[in-house]
Amino acid sequence: LTASTVLLLYLYWRERRRTKRLLSSRGAASKVLFFPDVETVNIEELSNTLECAVNSLDVCVYAISNWKLMDILIGAHRRGVAVRVITDRDQMSINPSPVEKLRRNGIQVRRNNDSYLMHHKFAVVDGRCLVNGSLNWTQQAVHGNQENIVISTNSDIVGPFLDQFEVLWERFHPQ
Amino acid sequence: LTASTVLLLYLYWRERRRTKRLLSSRGAASKVLFFPDVETVNIEELSNTLECAVNSLDVCVYAISNWKLMDILIGAHRRGVAVRVITDRDQMSINPSPVEKLRRNGIQVRRNNDSYLMHHKFAVVDGRCLVNGSLNWTQQAVHGNQENIVISTNSDIVGPFLDQFEVLWERFHPQ
Ligand SMILES: [Zn+2]
Ligand SMILES: [Zn+2]
Repeated sequence: LTASTVLLLYLYWRERRRTKRLLSSRGAASKVLFFPDVETVNIEELSNTLECAVNSLDVCVYAISNWKLMDILIGAHRRGVAVRVITDRDQMSINPSPVEKLRRNGIQVRRNNDSYLMHHKFAVVDGRCLVNGSLNWTQQAVHGNQENIVISTNSDIVGPFLDQFEVLWERFHPQ
Repeated sequence: LTASTVLLLYLYWRERRRTKRLLSSRGAASKVLFFPDVETVNIEELSNTLECAVNSLDVCVYAISNWKLMDILIGAHRRGVAVRVITDRDQMSINPSPVEKLRRNGIQVRRNNDSYLMHHKFAVVDGRCLVNGSLNWTQQAVHGNQENIVISTNSDIVGPFLDQFEVLWERFHPQ
């Protein structure tokens, strides 16, 4: 056994290990949750994902009246996470107003200004973990409706959503 | 250079190439589309994805009143694709009725029978390509609203949606 053979053996072993990790991470990088969530397992999973935020929390959700999820946003803001919320214009007039509650707690909220719907239901945690699907952040969506959420750290999916958030954040800048 | 060194060099090169392909395929397997779609590029992309169906088309969408997309389902059924549609109960009473049109053309349609929403907006093409997001199959969603669609062939994401479709298809079996 020469030194170069040993070196090559090592390089080959290292590359095989890398391939294996890549193959397994492709699965680990995404998770699918379905609702209604009778046992509150999935809402816990969603909550945990949002609570992981250390730097930023970009939320772009049509309806955000679920008080448990709103409290997570407020808690994140309090511990220094940059929390930004985009929601639908029609959500401004709900009473009691989720938007007012968020703003009172120091969170920036913007909304569309046309008559079409701001119908997204996504959030990006720390710029690298996407939550997206059919689920609005309401009581009914979590506990009654047939809904889905996909949690993904695949940068090819997360990247476009990050960009789109910035586009909408600027477009909905208050005049 | 001994024979074993050459062999090892080859194995190492093959493994590195495999790693590179894996890294790039993680991106190729997914695509993100945003709406409103002023230039109809994204609705074409969605249409093309659905038109690729050879064996099966499992559609589970809250609102399916977009006639262009309905025609794709009808066309698929005509060329022998097994098309199944799950939609929301409230969509049954729309006039003219998309559900009636689909059924008249031989497509099986089922709907929820509780008062909550069947709020999914996903479709699975040939059991291996998922279309999922906030977009309902309506004129307004495609041309006006802020919406998203993620197209993915990642089996870790597609698999659970396939299973959930079967669960709902059985649950909404007509009595
Ligand atoms: Zn909706
Ligand atoms: Zn037929």
